Amino acid sequence: MLPFARVTIIGLGLIGSSIARAVRQHMPSARVTGFDADPAVRETALRIALCDDVADTAGTSVIDADLVILCVPVGAMGAAAAGIAADLPADAIVSDVGSCKESVVEAVRTALPDATFVPAHPVAGTENSGPEAGFASLFHGRWCIVTPVAGTDALAVERVREFWKRLGAEVETMAPDHHDRVLAVTSHLPHLIAYTIVGTASDMEEVTQSEVIKYSAGGFRDFTRIAASDPTMWRDVFLANKEAVLDMLQRFSEDLTALQRAIRWGKGDELFELFTRTRAIRRSIIEQGQDDAAPDFGRTHD
Amino acid sequence: MLPFARVTIIGLGLIGSSIARAVRQHMPSARVTGFDADPAVRETALRIALCDDVADTAGTSVIDADLVILCVPVGAMGAAAAGIAADLPADAIVSDVGSCKESVVEAVRTALPDATFVPAHPVAGTENSGPEAGFASLFHGRWCIVTPVAGTDALAVERVREFWKRLGAEVETMAPDHHDRVLAVTSHLPHLIAYTIVGTASDMEEVTQSEVIKYSAGGFRDFTRIAASDPTMWRDVFLANKEAVLDMLQRFSEDLTALQRAIRWGKGDELFELFTRTRAIRRSIIEQGQDDAAPDFGRTHD
Repeated sequence: MLPFARVTIIGLGLIGSSIARAVRQHMPSARVTGFDADPAVRETALRIALCDDVADTAGTSVIDADLVILCVPVGAMGAAAAGIAADLPADAIVSDVGSCKESVVEAVRTALPDATFVPAHPVAGTENSGPEAGFASLFHGRWCIVTPVAGTDALAVERVREFWKRLGAEVETMAPDHHDRVLAVTSHLPHLIAYTIVGTASDMEEVTQSEVIKYSAGGFRDFTRIAASDPTMWRDVFLANKEAVLDMLQRFSEDLTALQRAIRWGKGDELFELFTRTRAIRRSIIEQGQDDAAPDFGRTHD
Repeated sequence: MLPFARVTIIGLGLIGSSIARAVRQHMPSARVTGFDADPAVRETALRIALCDDVADTAGTSVIDADLVILCVPVGAMGAAAAGIAADLPADAIVSDVGSCKESVVEAVRTALPDATFVPAHPVAGTENSGPEAGFASLFHGRWCIVTPVAGTDALAVERVREFWKRLGAEVETMAPDHHDRVLAVTSHLPHLIAYTIVGTASDMEEVTQSEVIKYSAGGFRDFTRIAASDPTMWRDVFLANKEAVLDMLQRFSEDLTALQRAIRWGKGDELFELFTRTRAIRRSIIEQGQDDAAPDFGRTHD
């Protein structure tokens, strides 16, 4: 049995359009309706036949949905939820894909106080954006974290979990606030650091930007990938998960200061000890199938 | 005409063993002799037939070489140079592959005051180490920076440049001190930041290490690749290029503090402006062939 038969996706960017493609691949009998606030994106979605239907308004897109997934930047979740409030069927389940959960839970529950809302976050993506950047296998082998709040109907949670399993994801359940702490470490802080270092490197006076680009294979280019992620999405994440991000940032800064001091005082043993420890983490990530075992991320070398 | 006919490689790790393979592929008539201070590495090199000869001592490895390339951690360059001083032919050219140049120039010139030394740095690598990690195409399309000091024989410099071009690299010439500033930005600072954030993430109390690994696809895993690089090599780099690294680190910290403040005060426009600017750098790196155009570094998604 399909967990859902009529899926509506609000927001047809990288994640929304990947869900559309993945539903068609893994649950071909389910109907997919799409909506995006941007008329140009709706046009593209129509042109590439992304969904069975592309609705002209958010309201009409949900009229007979049994699952509505909000795939917009976290700062736009409240407005997206408000936009469907008048037309949402009473038995539809609402979910989302936001990268932080406490703020989204609050925004959606305010806009849709009577809806069954099962927040979720597929931890997957690429640096590309828009309806043409998505692909059906994006969630294969990745984790989707479901963060139901107390009192949410258990069957609704189970159906959302089953939906993500069908798309090829592994599913985990977590409280929204714990999610926000975990993702602050594994996703938000890394993005913040990547954006910062790319900014720092492009602001040098004596080292030209063309030199930074030419010699980026020394390590810098790795950071430019996530620093090419969608600016709106990430601005919203940092503003929405402020406390956890600032806390992780504080810890990172302390550790960086310690390392800076070790370099200044020539404490090679401290550096060596850290560099040996960090190597083991990479091994675990590869062993657990969360990254490519090929050297250099499997980049082509010829 | 071959730039060199008898190449000796001292240090058979990732870079040394890649040079051996690349010389065999691109200059098959040149003879390659290898030496490594570690007997286990010499044994592996023999077993996999990496070179034409593997010498038992550094001295015998250089006896009739016309090019000797030092491929050891930058902190070991002085000792490696001293180890060949008694046996180096007068007309041999000595080069190296060190990631910082001022300290290496000083160490090698002290150990080999009369040798013709042409320092070089191929900006290429992977996170793997050792004689089995190398491959012939590692330098294809990457830059090799040659940093001759004033008074170096122009023909010797030209032969080293030609050698690297034959291995598939693009070659640039630069003063050693400028090299060290440029690489502090494009390579040393990124490695330092990656090592730090991987350390920070693995030291959390409330977020377990298994959670960090499970949800690493949110961005964190990108940093673990370069944080898996050789600990000895990188300890030496930070100690040898201390001033430039500390200076870049200071700039990075200032920029990070500014971003931290923008988050604390909810200044979304500042975040958005930076995140838009950093996106353009990625595009330039791809346009100039210094990274894979495929999303997510070309990682497999199924």
